[in-house]
Amino acid sequence: MKPAAITEAGIGLSERLGTVRRQTLDLCARLTPEDMMVQSCPEASPVKWHLAHTSWFFESFILREFLSGYRPFHPDFHWLFNSYYEGYSAFPEKKLRSSFSRPALDEILRYRTHVDDALERLLESGSGPEALRRIELGANHEEQHQELLLTDILHAFFTNPLRPAYREPGNEEARRQGNRGTGERAGQQAKERDAASPLRFLEFAGGLHQAGYAGSGFCFDNELARHQVWLEPYALSDRLVTCGEYLAFMADGGYRRPELWLSAGWDAVRNNGWRAPLYWTKEDLGKNLGGGSWSIFTLRGLFALDERSNAPVSHVSYYEADAYARWAGFRLPTEFEWEAAAETAPAEGNLLESGNLMPVPSTDLAQDQSRGQHQNQGRARHFGDCWQWTVSAYLPYPRFAPLEGALGEYNGKFMSGQMVLRGGSCVTPEHHIRSSYRNFFSPETRWQFSGIRLAQ
Amino acid sequence: MKPAAITEAGIGLSERLGTVRRQTLDLCARLTPEDMMVQSCPEASPVKWHLAHTSWFFESFILREFLSGYRPFHPDFHWLFNSYYEGYSAFPEKKLRSSFSRPALDEILRYRTHVDDALERLLESGSGPEALRRIELGANHEEQHQELLLTDILHAFFTNPLRPAYREPGNEEARRQGNRGTGERAGQQAKERDAASPLRFLEFAGGLHQAGYAGSGFCFDNELARHQVWLEPYALSDRLVTCGEYLAFMADGGYRRPELWLSAGWDAVRNNGWRAPLYWTKEDLGKNLGGGSWSIFTLRGLFALDERSNAPVSHVSYYEADAYARWAGFRLPTEFEWEAAAETAPAEGNLLESGNLMPVPSTDLAQDQSRGQHQNQGRARHFGDCWQWTVSAYLPYPRFAPLEGALGEYNGKFMSGQMVLRGGSCVTPEHHIRSSYRNFFSPETRWQFSGIRLAQ
Amino acid sequence: MKPAAITEAGIGLSERLGTVRRQTLDLCARLTPEDMMVQSCPEASPVKWHLAHTSWFFESFILREFLSGYRPFHPDFHWLFNSYYEGYSAFPEKKLRSSFSRPALDEILRYRTHVDDALERLLESGSGPEALRRIELGANHEEQHQELLLTDILHAFFTNPLRPAYREPGNEEARRQGNRGTGERAGQQAKERDAASPLRFLEFAGGLHQAGYAGSGFCFDNELARHQVWLEPYALSDRLVTCGEYLAFMADGGYRRPELWLSAGWDAVRNNGWRAPLYWTKEDLGKNLGGGSWSIFTLRGLFALDERSNAPVSHVSYYEADAYARWAGFRLPTEFEWEAAAETAPAEGNLLESGNLMPVPSTDLAQDQSRGQHQNQGRARHFGDCWQWTVSAYLPYPRFAPLEGALGEYNGKFMSGQMVLRGGSCVTPEHHIRSSYRNFFSPETRWQFSGIRLAQ
Amino acid sequence: MKPAAITEAGIGLSERLGTVRRQTLDLCARLTPEDMMVQSCPEASPVKWHLAHTSWFFESFILREFLSGYRPFHPDFHWLFNSYYEGYSAFPEKKLRSSFSRPALDEILRYRTHVDDALERLLESGSGPEALRRIELGANHEEQHQELLLTDILHAFFTNPLRPAYREPGNEEARRQGNRGTGERAGQQAKERDAASPLRFLEFAGGLHQAGYAGSGFCFDNELARHQVWLEPYALSDRLVTCGEYLAFMADGGYRRPELWLSAGWDAVRNNGWRAPLYWTKEDLGKNLGGGSWSIFTLRGLFALDERSNAPVSHVSYYEADAYARWAGFRLPTEFEWEAAAETAPAEGNLLESGNLMPVPSTDLAQDQSRGQHQNQGRARHFGDCWQWTVSAYLPYPRFAPLEGALGEYNGKFMSGQMVLRGGSCVTPEHHIRSSYRNFFSPETRWQFSGIRLAQ
Repeated sequence: MKPAAITEAGIGLSERLGTVRRQTLDLCARLTPEDMMVQSCPEASPVKWHLAHTSWFFESFILREFLSGYRPFHPDFHWLFNSYYEGYSAFPEKKLRSSFSRPALDEILRYRTHVDDALERLLESGSGPEALRRIELGANHEEQHQELLLTDILHAFFTNPLRPAYREPGNEEARRQGNRGTGERAGQQAKERDAASPLRFLEFAGGLHQAGYAGSGFCFDNELARHQVWLEPYALSDRLVTCGEYLAFMADGGYRRPELWLSAGWDAVRNNGWRAPLYWTKEDLGKNLGGGSWSIFTLRGLFALDERSNAPVSHVSYYEADAYARWAGFRLPTEFEWEAAAETAPAEGNLLESGNLMPVPSTDLAQDQSRGQHQNQGRARHFGDCWQWTVSAYLPYPRFAPLEGALGEYNGKFMSGQMVLRGGSCVTPEHHIRSSYRNFFSPETRWQFSGIRLAQ
Repeated sequence: MKPAAITEAGIGLSERLGTVRRQTLDLCARLTPEDMMVQSCPEASPVKWHLAHTSWFFESFILREFLSGYRPFHPDFHWLFNSYYEGYSAFPEKKLRSSFSRPALDEILRYRTHVDDALERLLESGSGPEALRRIELGANHEEQHQELLLTDILHAFFTNPLRPAYREPGNEEARRQGNRGTGERAGQQAKERDAASPLRFLEFAGGLHQAGYAGSGFCFDNELARHQVWLEPYALSDRLVTCGEYLAFMADGGYRRPELWLSAGWDAVRNNGWRAPLYWTKEDLGKNLGGGSWSIFTLRGLFALDERSNAPVSHVSYYEADAYARWAGFRLPTEFEWEAAAETAPAEGNLLESGNLMPVPSTDLAQDQSRGQHQNQGRARHFGDCWQWTVSAYLPYPRFAPLEGALGEYNGKFMSGQMVLRGGSCVTPEHHIRSSYRNFFSPETRWQFSGIRLAQ
Repeated sequence: MKPAAITEAGIGLSERLGTVRRQTLDLCARLTPEDMMVQSCPEASPVKWHLAHTSWFFESFILREFLSGYRPFHPDFHWLFNSYYEGYSAFPEKKLRSSFSRPALDEILRYRTHVDDALERLLESGSGPEALRRIELGANHEEQHQELLLTDILHAFFTNPLRPAYREPGNEEARRQGNRGTGERAGQQAKERDAASPLRFLEFAGGLHQAGYAGSGFCFDNELARHQVWLEPYALSDRLVTCGEYLAFMADGGYRRPELWLSAGWDAVRNNGWRAPLYWTKEDLGKNLGGGSWSIFTLRGLFALDERSNAPVSHVSYYEADAYARWAGFRLPTEFEWEAAAETAPAEGNLLESGNLMPVPSTDLAQDQSRGQHQNQGRARHFGDCWQWTVSAYLPYPRFAPLEGALGEYNGKFMSGQMVLRGGSCVTPEHHIRSSYRNFFSPETRWQFSGIRLAQ
Repeated sequence: MKPAAITEAGIGLSERLGTVRRQTLDLCARLTPEDMMVQSCPEASPVKWHLAHTSWFFESFILREFLSGYRPFHPDFHWLFNSYYEGYSAFPEKKLRSSFSRPALDEILRYRTHVDDALERLLESGSGPEALRRIELGANHEEQHQELLLTDILHAFFTNPLRPAYREPGNEEARRQGNRGTGERAGQQAKERDAASPLRFLEFAGGLHQAGYAGSGFCFDNELARHQVWLEPYALSDRLVTCGEYLAFMADGGYRRPELWLSAGWDAVRNNGWRAPLYWTKEDLGKNLGGGSWSIFTLRGLFALDERSNAPVSHVSYYEADAYARWAGFRLPTEFEWEAAAETAPAEGNLLESGNLMPVPSTDLAQDQSRGQHQNQGRARHFGDCWQWTVSAYLPYPRFAPLEGALGEYNGKFMSGQMVLRGGSCVTPEHHIRSSYRNFFSPETRWQFSGIRLAQ
């Protein structure tokens, strides 16, 4: 945070804050209080907890410190909604969050309002630069939880044997859904219309490259210090690997051939019984789906694989991405190769604001974007759809300095055992993503919207 | 079921059914839809699931079979709310129940009404004896789930770091709670008032005894066949071991002395870090409670141990009950010793209807009962407060015959690795318990209201 | 021990002791020091450890206490070779025993001699009755470890992918092994020759029966006190279930039908991937055996199932025994039914001294026995071949009193979570077994020579 | 391998091969056949297995392929002693290796001779360059297993409660051991004599640097391709962190302060109960060592910490190295920083040939080396004592190409979840190590001789 310049004026920040805070609630509009209780895997948290924790963040790191006379909403929330900041307070084990039926949702919503009001007072009172920096950090923090909230609810709804949809299929999709009964033919039509463009590689010369955040806006501490890296010449695929391409890997014995896998990846395949990406299923409502073909569960419900064969494959682990790349004769990019290629590209694509809520074929996006003012410049689509696994471990940059105090735990303490992902996904807020942005997950993770960009 | 006579008339059964079904809903009156989502340990289920599953039981084993033209409420509920009947349908893994945010509580309540209406139609239509038997079984099944529902919500609320109370302390308790700040003195007063009667042993001559259900009402298949057992002379304590007595065991190094424990019990102590019964805690709201003294969490909130020292100790495993008995120089009774002693006693005591919702000292009960028409005849209190661990493994009686079909899985398939408990607890419906009733849990279980009766 | 009379004279005991101690070493004659290091499952110990621990038992409970001036062999052995007696000393975790390369086998053998010499001195010095009782206990303890030693080495050799045989096949078996190439025909011949007698049931009237040890010789504390039990009329099969019969259960989907299993048993089937008894395999030397048919690994090497189809099935868990019995329309006996039936039978059969080292068909035994002075009286063969699972949990008899001091941990502390087995096996010393003898293992155990006797 | 030039002549290679193969046996001279059976942790293998597997490597990848008419020693060894080459054959689970009592050690030694003879024939017959390259690879492979053999036997002997020493303490050490009774004073003397030099940092200018192997001899595939990296200016400590320095970290609450640890590291501390490096103990022979002070177990037996306080700390995980560095105000180096600093240094130090078999203080080494031809040039000691954790994840270099065929599994498939270590240890053969050498282990690993070099 320190090296980043802060948002120009409290005014601008107030607006941005309002937008972010409202967006979180908007994302919950379709959820019931019961939905917001579910915590269906160790990576996930209940939606209600996300609502509370993001408010806790503002209360703990901004209001308590910078707003004189601030009265905390509840005497126990300062530890109850702490996620992992050892330096701040004790906190409950993560898995207990599914037991937080009390405080009730109503109370959490009042907590949000209480915090919003106090933040407004703080901004009106002309707070100093550190407070403004922290508010911007809090807004970015909340954007991360918007994305997590959707990622978690997808898993929650998949775990529910009834597999409810977070949102109805869109017009386009509805039409396809309507065709669903006629299976193969509908798939054929979809293929003709959406046929994925052939995979092309864009070449880059390499050389000495500056990596890390260079602008004057907000960035996380892990994007700094900006530093030089040497890149050998390389090439990146101009789009992500599609479901259809991934199906060919599966059909070629991808999940049964140890020579395609990292040793730890092969262990994961066997221990977890993987034979397809997460959310690919042959079952519906406890019954086999007709014909033994795959369906894909999304925030918009269940689709036949045929309907999504040209959409980017998502919810694959690093191991699967790596095995696919080896099978295809390529490799995954490093995070610096990715960043150098994306540095000048606009941060646009199939992100949260496009409303798709799932990866879509390039051609769909082109249409969406033409409607939406954007221009598809006929080159690589770097951002959106899926976070892209890189072959880079998540490690500190030279001269990395974590934020002061408990906030230093935000990113730095996770720099072990995780791989960097780049580019944002279909549930990442557009304002949130940039070319220097480093996401990171364990290589076994599949609950994220994670996909495959190839390199060579 | 087969050998048991059925309830006289559909009329009586209709009333009984209505009472049972209403009581389940009454128990939920203090719970929010969010509370009813929590599943906080592998033994437990969400309350909402209990509401649905008990209706599923009537639908699956009675309405579908005996009510012609019955229209199931929802096409997927027949497998969604199956608990463990392999012979009936596939069913979801138990741990998934916490993901059932849909169907919403409202829909489950409509499901209950739908089933209730259909049962009424069935009863009015003059159903045959097997249908009536099954309805009685369904009512008993629902009573078991009433008990489980309270057992589960106690764990859920204990797991919530805020530790909400299911119900406000009663008048008596409220007064004590009010004294809570003055700790030691309040405890002293409580001791003077409630001093536990000295433990006495009632002697029994032994000999050939008939065991198993002998009446003409309802019983479970595992209470049959009635058969002879030979008993050596024995004696049983006239009341359960109290919290105060158990504290003396702890103070004497009970949890640190392997010679007091069964080998598997000692393993459990070390693996689980046990040093007190479940729900005994020195923490409140994430903070140590003052003075390092124990508190006990109940359905009526947190009490200082002093306030409950004369109440029966509850939520101990078989291993703890066994170690306590060895330490005290006694042993646990066999299930047949217990049954022979209790056979002629009225099934009354601190049961669900007394409204205490936690074990209470004998003197309290006397008062409660005098208010409530019962007479304390100055002899052993066999029923209520806590299920009592016996030294008998849960095994089939001679000529045991499980019910026909999938219902045969109700009890029989659990006859391995579990110990028998007798007597009912403070959350067991009074109508539900009898001297031949066999409850059963794994010896490591502590989530139940399980206590200690001594024998020698 | 207390209630049992002791062996008449030190002389007799000295002889018996010499026999037992020598027999242990004889059993090791075919093993290398490397073999004696292997500990291949949690139930097992290395053979070298058995040699040391049995000596430790004599040293700890007899020599140190009763032989004045006894000089322990090594200052650390008193804790190093303690198995589980918490009251005696600290002891190493069981799994560490496979790291005991030092002391070397040579040293352990010197330890044995040192202990033997001291025991002889003690016996010559005219030791009192308690010392004599303890020596008899030590001899029985060592016999138990003789059996364990063979049970463990079978597992060790099965775990070795080369599957070495503990001992060459006998003459009879060698002939069959010679036929092994011709598979089906050899099996046919074996069938004709050894055809298992049809399963018959012997009926017993029941009534009041005395259970527990009644003689004047040695027995374990868990066989006492002798007490009365009431038995309903019952019948027992006159022989154990054979491999061929068990194969029919498997062919009928035995391992795929949950309705045949206890709930915990079905969990065990799925969690462990069981589809046949332990030591049944379709692989040899890392390769599939021809024809997809089963082979059975024994202390005498690998046999085609055909060659052993009339031998009792062994190495099944309680769950498998129970499921088989249910499938066959019968049940398992209680330990008291078994004891009442076997009480007057001579303790003879396919035991260790017969030298078979594996269960054999009844007809084989008749031949073996005719050679060996015994008479097969045309009735049930109660003893030998396999320990027989009973439906009785391992629990204390009325007035059970463990031995004084640390020796009280010998049996009593395991009275939880285990089922009683009766009758001894093909690796039980003949002198060791009797009708009141109670063996006990967890219901999931398969490493024992455990088989199936049916009841109804 | 491909890019590396091969050893000049078969003659030279024959000599080298003989030296390596003899050295392996020399290392076993002090071990019994029973010692060679022990496998005391998942990372380790029995010594006997190392003897067999290194021979298997030559047989499988050289003799079978390049020596015409080669007769394999045993028909099953080709799969029995395969470690993890999926592309070569099936292989036993690693944990089964402790069950390989057969083949006996004698047979394994004959196997070695058989393979040695055949390799000699191959070398005499004038084998082509690929065969020679593979033999050099086999020699390097065997050197790795020499190191593992010692690493594993240290763990085996530590696991044995008697804690035998692999080798007697040396003269120097014997003197200290002799002083052991007088504890504090001996430590004081040791401190005066060996006082660790103050930690100094050597500065490096950074800039574009060539990384990876550049010579014409042997290297592993993971050291290639040589490529450019950009380094910022940095400094490295001139020696490793000592036991005494690490003790100060412990005394300052190092293992109790989450803010010093990576999140995964803190989890490891709590889950494993770490409170000191592996092999630091306060127990001996099952008893507490006097005074509550630490001792350190080594291949030369148990030393008081005082005696080793100036020796480099060893057997710490990456997490501990990282936490120590953070506590001390420094960081760990990247693998490229390390390599650039060490590139021109001679590969000498406290390596296997020095015979110490444990890390030693710098001053000791100077003495040892003066005896032994080497010159200590008064600068950083890069090699030996302990492998040094770097902050670099083990990932492929640009243009990394694994060897062809099953040999491609040698290194490449482990490029996930592991950190790079550099520099060799006191059990690494001198011939084996070089500045471009990349070792790699999981960050939780402590069984290796792994220590701490600081950077800033």
